[in-house]
Amino acid sequence: MAGPLPENNLKNPDSDRYGQELYQLMVALYPICRSITGDGFRQTLRQLQAVVPLTLHEVPSGTQVFDWTVPQEWNIREAWIKNARGEKIIDFSISNLHVVNYSVPVHRKIRWAELKEHLFTLPDKPDWIPYRTSYYKATWGFCLSHHQQQQLRDEEYEICIDSTLGPGHLTYGEFKIQGTADEEVLISCHSCHPSLCNDNLSGMVVAAKLAQQLSDLPLRYSYRFVWIPGTIGAITWLALNEPGLSRIKHGLVLSCVGDSGRFNYKRSRRGNAEIDRVVEHVLRHAETDFGISDFSPYGYDERQYCSPGIDLPVGCFMRTPNGKYPQYHTSADDLSFVKPEALAGSLDRLLSIVRILEKNRVYLNLNPKCEPQLGRRGLYRLMGGTNGSELEEAILWVLNQSDGANSLLDIAERSRLGFGIVCGAAEALLQSGLLRETA
Amino acid sequence: MAGPLPENNLKNPDSDRYGQELYQLMVALYPICRSITGDGFRQTLRQLQAVVPLTLHEVPSGTQVFDWTVPQEWNIREAWIKNARGEKIIDFSISNLHVVNYSVPVHRKIRWAELKEHLFTLPDKPDWIPYRTSYYKATWGFCLSHHQQQQLRDEEYEICIDSTLGPGHLTYGEFKIQGTADEEVLISCHSCHPSLCNDNLSGMVVAAKLAQQLSDLPLRYSYRFVWIPGTIGAITWLALNEPGLSRIKHGLVLSCVGDSGRFNYKRSRRGNAEIDRVVEHVLRHAETDFGISDFSPYGYDERQYCSPGIDLPVGCFMRTPNGKYPQYHTSADDLSFVKPEALAGSLDRLLSIVRILEKNRVYLNLNPKCEPQLGRRGLYRLMGGTNGSELEEAILWVLNQSDGANSLLDIAERSRLGFGIVCGAAEALLQSGLLRETA
Amino acid sequence: MAGPLPENNLKNPDSDRYGQELYQLMVALYPICRSITGDGFRQTLRQLQAVVPLTLHEVPSGTQVFDWTVPQEWNIREAWIKNARGEKIIDFSISNLHVVNYSVPVHRKIRWAELKEHLFTLPDKPDWIPYRTSYYKATWGFCLSHHQQQQLRDEEYEICIDSTLGPGHLTYGEFKIQGTADEEVLISCHSCHPSLCNDNLSGMVVAAKLAQQLSDLPLRYSYRFVWIPGTIGAITWLALNEPGLSRIKHGLVLSCVGDSGRFNYKRSRRGNAEIDRVVEHVLRHAETDFGISDFSPYGYDERQYCSPGIDLPVGCFMRTPNGKYPQYHTSADDLSFVKPEALAGSLDRLLSIVRILEKNRVYLNLNPKCEPQLGRRGLYRLMGGTNGSELEEAILWVLNQSDGANSLLDIAERSRLGFGIVCGAAEALLQSGLLRETA
Repeated sequence: MAGPLPENNLKNPDSDRYGQELYQLMVALYPICRSITGDGFRQTLRQLQAVVPLTLHEVPSGTQVFDWTVPQEWNIREAWIKNARGEKIIDFSISNLHVVNYSVPVHRKIRWAELKEHLFTLPDKPDWIPYRTSYYKATWGFCLSHHQQQQLRDEEYEICIDSTLGPGHLTYGEFKIQGTADEEVLISCHSCHPSLCNDNLSGMVVAAKLAQQLSDLPLRYSYRFVWIPGTIGAITWLALNEPGLSRIKHGLVLSCVGDSGRFNYKRSRRGNAEIDRVVEHVLRHAETDFGISDFSPYGYDERQYCSPGIDLPVGCFMRTPNGKYPQYHTSADDLSFVKPEALAGSLDRLLSIVRILEKNRVYLNLNPKCEPQLGRRGLYRLMGGTNGSELEEAILWVLNQSDGANSLLDIAERSRLGFGIVCGAAEALLQSGLLRETA
Repeated sequence: MAGPLPENNLKNPDSDRYGQELYQLMVALYPICRSITGDGFRQTLRQLQAVVPLTLHEVPSGTQVFDWTVPQEWNIREAWIKNARGEKIIDFSISNLHVVNYSVPVHRKIRWAELKEHLFTLPDKPDWIPYRTSYYKATWGFCLSHHQQQQLRDEEYEICIDSTLGPGHLTYGEFKIQGTADEEVLISCHSCHPSLCNDNLSGMVVAAKLAQQLSDLPLRYSYRFVWIPGTIGAITWLALNEPGLSRIKHGLVLSCVGDSGRFNYKRSRRGNAEIDRVVEHVLRHAETDFGISDFSPYGYDERQYCSPGIDLPVGCFMRTPNGKYPQYHTSADDLSFVKPEALAGSLDRLLSIVRILEKNRVYLNLNPKCEPQLGRRGLYRLMGGTNGSELEEAILWVLNQSDGANSLLDIAERSRLGFGIVCGAAEALLQSGLLRETA
Repeated sequence: MAGPLPENNLKNPDSDRYGQELYQLMVALYPICRSITGDGFRQTLRQLQAVVPLTLHEVPSGTQVFDWTVPQEWNIREAWIKNARGEKIIDFSISNLHVVNYSVPVHRKIRWAELKEHLFTLPDKPDWIPYRTSYYKATWGFCLSHHQQQQLRDEEYEICIDSTLGPGHLTYGEFKIQGTADEEVLISCHSCHPSLCNDNLSGMVVAAKLAQQLSDLPLRYSYRFVWIPGTIGAITWLALNEPGLSRIKHGLVLSCVGDSGRFNYKRSRRGNAEIDRVVEHVLRHAETDFGISDFSPYGYDERQYCSPGIDLPVGCFMRTPNGKYPQYHTSADDLSFVKPEALAGSLDRLLSIVRILEKNRVYLNLNPKCEPQLGRRGLYRLMGGTNGSELEEAILWVLNQSDGANSLLDIAERSRLGFGIVCGAAEALLQSGLLRETA
């Protein structure tokens, strides 16, 4: 892959512009009410087509996908609560978080005693509206701030949720870049949440921008991007695409990549897959602080990708993980919580990860008995001094370790050098005829 | 195994009662003079038969057992030292530690200069009588406190050791509980010391009580308990039972389990045998402080069980190890040094260990491709919220890891959950038809 | 191997004498101008023949050795710089570091502007003369202290380097001690530097003394010592001796073993070769402070011995490593920087290393089922007490671990006992017929 990909430790010169573009994309998508099915999801994907020509796939309700069934499609026009004086005190048009996602339709007068059983608040975060769903139990509900609830009196209310729940489709978006090889890298992001920015508009827009960036580059791997509803979407996609899964050599779930926190990577179920080692290498060389955690079977769609019968090498790339920031799954996960520079930084790291995946190969030292004479090949300082340069160190490491068993990443890890310098050393040695790629 | 076994982290409701029973048993056995052979050993086993119907085995002196020969049988009626005025100044009937175990008979007048060569004291613990033996060198001796010795003058004494040493038998006790499987768990305790409580009346009574407890339960494994003289008894038992040793899948030597110190587990020679991992799991989840040490070839009868030609997975379960408490092998290892609650706590941990051994199996996820839908099986909260319960976590872990390679203990260790919750998750999944045991 | 080799933790009684002998040998060799070829190298080897009857090997210039060609031979008679008044201000006869090693001949008047391009100093160590070489680029130069250079004015100078560079030979020294086995231990030291004491007159004289010491002893392994020019010499030796390399089972590069710093061992490329474990064992038991570092492909001739197509188990034994002391490659690496006691200490450690290599074998416990009765074989205290001696511990460890898979070093490491006591235990058990060496 050619030069456009940034070195690990260099700031991408286009970062500021990319940060603004990513943020503006999020601003445009923020108001849409998304759920695991419905027109909000479709509308979101169509807006992303302005960035990358992804394809919309429609899977009918009732389709059996492994142990699950694609649910009915949910759409909603309006929803509100009026008090006894007919004033709208809660209105879906102000925040789409006000309605429990997948609420069944309802329109009637209701006593406070009954209504309050359908209200959800966060008493310890009294200004914020919680995000709640009920995909698999037919019910309805409203979410509101605790302060709003405290102002409600014991009187009669009129409630309306003008939703539909019936046969339709589950929609997902997919985009593939064909590389020279059929082996694939999978990038997956759940796209089923309404007005929540970090979780996961951030992942959706960064994935789209990454796809756009990679489209312009010559690539070895093929790259497959999916924008899917969480859980049921990943299960649906895996069920429908099972024959092709063996082509997936590496994968990442993108989530919560827009906040200002440090990066956190959650390893794949395998724990030491190449993608796990690549992400850790990038973060170790580019960040002063970051987190690495072992796989666990709760979190995002890595749950499905890493189920024992699928077991793909897919990790989860995040900044602050789900549940680890107070704004998580509340109205405070809004446009002020995510930052253009954080989005751009996430994109930068992903480009670095791709760069290593693309360049990581196993080479063979063609002059394995003693060191070759680097001097006459212009690969070594001619006047003997005390210290070699880092590139010379890398050249010696690549020569020493290229016995057919070690990849460039193995060499970078053993030498504690950055992948970039090791890769540069390998390229210099290739040009000198001292190295060849293994079959 | 059914409910009666306590959860790891729960105090057995019968603990207080068991503690008292264990202690009273020890009180009854304390005065008996035990050695590696003789009537004291037999009398001890017969008293234990009140708790558990163990069988006494008699092995004739002279029997060849691997590199060793069963020694002559030793018995003793009385022993004393009288001073020049005919006063008994040392008397075996006051403490059976006063005579060097296996002393040959002697009765004569003796000069101080000769006598003092046969006296053993502990100058740095001047109130305590040491415990000494001479199994394989024909000699005699007295043990006494250093204060006692300091009062002796240079005069003529009369000494008497009315012992017999001649052809007889080595006696050991054995008790087996037949489980549904022939694979066995071995519980071994050396029972050859005279009036010493922690080492090892504690192990003897806890083993008996454990046997009594397990007798009432449906069990998968068979359990074999042996009360044997140290070293020669273990060697004798192994030599006579060699053909059946391959049935032993797990084993523990019990020793020093009555003092108030923290638990200390010494691993088997293999180091990572299932019994090693189970004991460590139990202690890690039940104790705030405990010790784990690697195998070493000195200590108790694990020396024989873990000799290279035997190499059974047998560890040593202790509180304060041999030699690590000042009362060790002295008259101060008496009834005040051991505590009912310590004995009961040891029993509790052993029951937890048995519980895990019984329940630790490898299961297979029957719905391995993506997660199964837990909601419709009643295994999952239906209204999506932020945090799952610990049982839900355990369910996800069991599903994710049950690929046929991981036992429930493996899963508990990887997830850092307790074995009990992981086991409960497996049971719920079995009932839902999502799991089956591997062949 | 018999008693003369010191125990790990004992000071060799001859250390003081050896220290003086080693130091005097260095004093004699210090003034000689060595390079990678030439008469200085030959003269050095001939003086070492007074210690050990090594053989000089001559390899003609132009000989192809793997990727390299043996260079022309360099010799030098005199070199100086005269100022405008004809005063010799720099003179090779005062320090042979004044001339860049392998300088081509030159004799002419020269302007300051041109001259200063050929002068090398150390501005941050203004009293010291640097050591520089130019083996593979035909040039000339002078090295001098920064203070000397600061006194030079912009005037015309006369320079003379009376060197020859032409067809000749690369010389190296070799000495082999035949042991009972053909398997070899290789000791290699680069001998190509002029008046630099720690790097590497120290290695050269310690190697010679080690060879002298071992010559008097019955040995299992054969020992091969080589005194070679760095890099090109190791490559030459390996190329000419390739068929015999498979006999080399262990090896050490000796370098910088005369300074007062702590020992530092650099592991072989394999990382856990027997030599790596032996050196670490010796240092751990003999030193309170020492360093162990992983292999890296820069340093001394381990670069060649550990190249991927050679891959011998050769580590590098040093005190303060190359580049880690300020005097490195300067005139301050002189006779005041190295100490007789440091040289003797290095020799002591090497003798301990040889001792373990010689004695490290795998034995088989001939009585593997339970412990043998040590008492009747005189291997155990007969009167039972509390604590066994360290030798008894070692006996039990050797018996327990000698199942055919563990060497004495394995046993020493697992037991954390010193190799000497473990070896003594094995010898006692061999004499008792309880152990035999594996085939």
